[in-house]
Amino acid sequence: MDHYQELEKIFTRIKRLDNAISILHWDSAVNLAENSIDSRSNQISEIKTIIYEIYSSPKILDLFDKTQENQLNQFQLANFNLMKKWHLDATIIDNDLSNALIKATAKSEMVWRKAREENNFKDFVPYLEEVVNLTREKGLIKSQKLNCTLYEALADEFEPGFKEDKTDLIFAKLKDFLAGFLPEVIQHQQKYPISELPLVNISQEKQFILAKKLMNLLGFDFTKGRIDLSAHPFCGGFSGDCRITTSFDEKNFISGLMGVLHETGHALYEQNLPKDWLEQPLGSYVGMQIHESQSLIIEMQMARTKEFLSYLIPEINETFDYSPRELNADNLYRIINRVNPSFIRIDADEVTYPLHIMMRYNLEKKLLNRQISVSDLAESFREEMYSNLGIRPNNHQEGCLQDIHWPSGFFGYFPSYSLGAMSATQFYQAFKKDAPKGNFSQIMTWLKDNIHSKGSLYSSNDLIKEVTGEELNTEIYQNYLRKKFIDDYR
Amino acid sequence: MDHYQELEKIFTRIKRLDNAISILHWDSAVNLAENSIDSRSNQISEIKTIIYEIYSSPKILDLFDKTQENQLNQFQLANFNLMKKWHLDATIIDNDLSNALIKATAKSEMVWRKAREENNFKDFVPYLEEVVNLTREKGLIKSQKLNCTLYEALADEFEPGFKEDKTDLIFAKLKDFLAGFLPEVIQHQQKYPISELPLVNISQEKQFILAKKLMNLLGFDFTKGRIDLSAHPFCGGFSGDCRITTSFDEKNFISGLMGVLHETGHALYEQNLPKDWLEQPLGSYVGMQIHESQSLIIEMQMARTKEFLSYLIPEINETFDYSPRELNADNLYRIINRVNPSFIRIDADEVTYPLHIMMRYNLEKKLLNRQISVSDLAESFREEMYSNLGIRPNNHQEGCLQDIHWPSGFFGYFPSYSLGAMSATQFYQAFKKDAPKGNFSQIMTWLKDNIHSKGSLYSSNDLIKEVTGEELNTEIYQNYLRKKFIDDYR
Repeated sequence: MDHYQELEKIFTRIKRLDNAISILHWDSAVNLAENSIDSRSNQISEIKTIIYEIYSSPKILDLFDKTQENQLNQFQLANFNLMKKWHLDATIIDNDLSNALIKATAKSEMVWRKAREENNFKDFVPYLEEVVNLTREKGLIKSQKLNCTLYEALADEFEPGFKEDKTDLIFAKLKDFLAGFLPEVIQHQQKYPISELPLVNISQEKQFILAKKLMNLLGFDFTKGRIDLSAHPFCGGFSGDCRITTSFDEKNFISGLMGVLHETGHALYEQNLPKDWLEQPLGSYVGMQIHESQSLIIEMQMARTKEFLSYLIPEINETFDYSPRELNADNLYRIINRVNPSFIRIDADEVTYPLHIMMRYNLEKKLLNRQISVSDLAESFREEMYSNLGIRPNNHQEGCLQDIHWPSGFFGYFPSYSLGAMSATQFYQAFKKDAPKGNFSQIMTWLKDNIHSKGSLYSSNDLIKEVTGEELNTEIYQNYLRKKFIDDYR
Repeated sequence: MDHYQELEKIFTRIKRLDNAISILHWDSAVNLAENSIDSRSNQISEIKTIIYEIYSSPKILDLFDKTQENQLNQFQLANFNLMKKWHLDATIIDNDLSNALIKATAKSEMVWRKAREENNFKDFVPYLEEVVNLTREKGLIKSQKLNCTLYEALADEFEPGFKEDKTDLIFAKLKDFLAGFLPEVIQHQQKYPISELPLVNISQEKQFILAKKLMNLLGFDFTKGRIDLSAHPFCGGFSGDCRITTSFDEKNFISGLMGVLHETGHALYEQNLPKDWLEQPLGSYVGMQIHESQSLIIEMQMARTKEFLSYLIPEINETFDYSPRELNADNLYRIINRVNPSFIRIDADEVTYPLHIMMRYNLEKKLLNRQISVSDLAESFREEMYSNLGIRPNNHQEGCLQDIHWPSGFFGYFPSYSLGAMSATQFYQAFKKDAPKGNFSQIMTWLKDNIHSKGSLYSSNDLIKEVTGEELNTEIYQNYLRKKFIDDYR
């Protein structure tokens, strides 16, 4: 076995262990009994430690040295470079700091759940401080070794190659645009009143039936995947065993439906990753920006359109035995695309959503750079929200305690959502250029061929350029928002 | 950290990995999509290989050597001896043979499923031959190293310290007894005709409600466990996250109910293992004989009695809204304790069950000793069944293809069922001596204190002697059968 092949064998082991962890995580959210949580953490942290030990063995460095790059083909070379990147990420901070962070975030997540429930920010402060301090420590070490900013060092874990100055620029343009656009949209939309859908209870069973039908339509492969219930929807598992979850509100079937479409977008990306490389770094998704773009291309670009709603409504009529006259494409379009500044990020419309992201981006940079302290966070959050959205949260649940990202130590994650939304728009328009009358199955094939099946062959930026012919372009996004929320909103 | 403590740390890792595998196995039976099976096998075999590597490292032998036994307390010493036993078991055959067996049994299980469905023994022969040959090879190596018979070497995996001559003797006595007892029972029971329960459909949901109620009553801890559906009922997971499964027949609620009680018996053993030792060998169950005794003490000793049925019937009336006059304790007792030789082991009554076991015990010994070949098995099975039970299977599904044990390479497992049934009787009578009017909660406490919480501190034999004052005694079992199936059967 040559050196490169030996490396492939090692990374196969790592991927299989990662896959096992993914299933255990999914099980924790879907099945785990409350007093089994500790033993589950033990299993996962034991497997993570084994992965760390594999990365830390001198053997892997020796194999990197001895591999002759000129004997590798294009894919092997890309895979080899990713191996080195994964290795660097896994070993860049030592096991002590890494374990300290695992412990601190586990604790802080736990305290956060209670703090959010009780609207108690003060008691949560010391736990978040610990997380911020350790994350900062990690970021400083990484930024030195990667020769980048502190924020970039942290964001790199979610979005490899993340650039702070570029993102600052994109967000500045977008913010500028939204400053005028948001009031314009609100004023425009007031001219088109909504007829509320008559309230009915739609059972979970019925919502499951429609969800599965749509998943099938979009090409979700149920022979290697599932859908289940969990408190918060997510896409778990891995390519070969992809498990999305959802929660259904019996009084509001729209939210569950959109959630399923969103997670199905994530799942299709996973299920269509390059088959021959699934057990190697090359067979992984590029980063969270592209992952989010794949959920949003389904939920936002494809589903929240009149064309899709015209297909969907008869399905709703039939499956739910629910056909009020208010349920027509124009009215439903107005309902699901209504713009209105609100407190909770995950419930925000597409126009105000980037403002939620940008304020978090600013705040987390300030926290990490010590321009604000954790104890200032609640107040700073209120003020940022007011300056971005014109509203002030009434409590911490509507404010700085609403997201799990910071308690979990996910600093640098938020931008992926909005960069993903922009990427989704650009991808969809590229598809429309290729196939102006493209149907469901055509878009799915197009996404598979152009994005999913590439795995991590290209960086996010290169992939966007390759597929759309240009870099991320705020104007495309701005035009999309204008068309969807003003021109088509009638 | 001293040497013994280092060993504890290694075995903690092994146990956590074992626990992760248990959950992945459970998930395979309950959730896994058909095309995710290969990736699941990859995860499990990767973790198993890591466990093998841990056992094979020279470090562990060095720590065994350096541990000073005289500095260990009673529990540590017992744990230390179990560590050495586990290590020996894990390393006694090399990884190549071990992997060849894993592959051969995986393949043979797959072919067996189809063969059973299609009643096709011939095509299955070569796969079972491969399994028998490799198992034999393993057994020969182990028997030399453990200085025991081939059969003992294999049975030791399920029941540590299994003795062939002793089992031969017990089975000979039991067979002798049953030769006269079986016709006597059948003749006696004919005097007491059964009134069939009127057929109704009881939904899965309702059966789940009663199942959970009974599990609660018996002390199953739902804060660290679950019950789910699977094709074949089993008790999976591990002590801290115990997961039983069941299947409910809407036309026959009795079978599902008894199945749940059986698996709950297994689960209570797991849930009550000694808390302080759960991540060490000492915190594991002794062997399959004692494990089976714990399911049978609930299902057979406690539940299939008139006392329990008198409690159960009002629950059935209420939960299932089902109160026919045929549903009374005497008639139900007659229904569920009716003795009748039949083809399928898992459906057999308590009197003919040991005959199913003994014939398999004979056949697997003959297979391993090459007194019969795999291609003879179907015919030998027919003849053994006729000589033991007086009936000949009409097809292979009723014959040698009915059980998964041999396709899975589980040679030496079958005796545990009947030895477990005898142990259960003896344990229950010991309890009755301690608490003649013992109620549910008293028996649960008694089992926990005397058996469950001991973990692997004693061998099966020593545990039985310790708890009941004597070794396994066929007469106790014979008297039990006589009382239950003749004296009380009216």
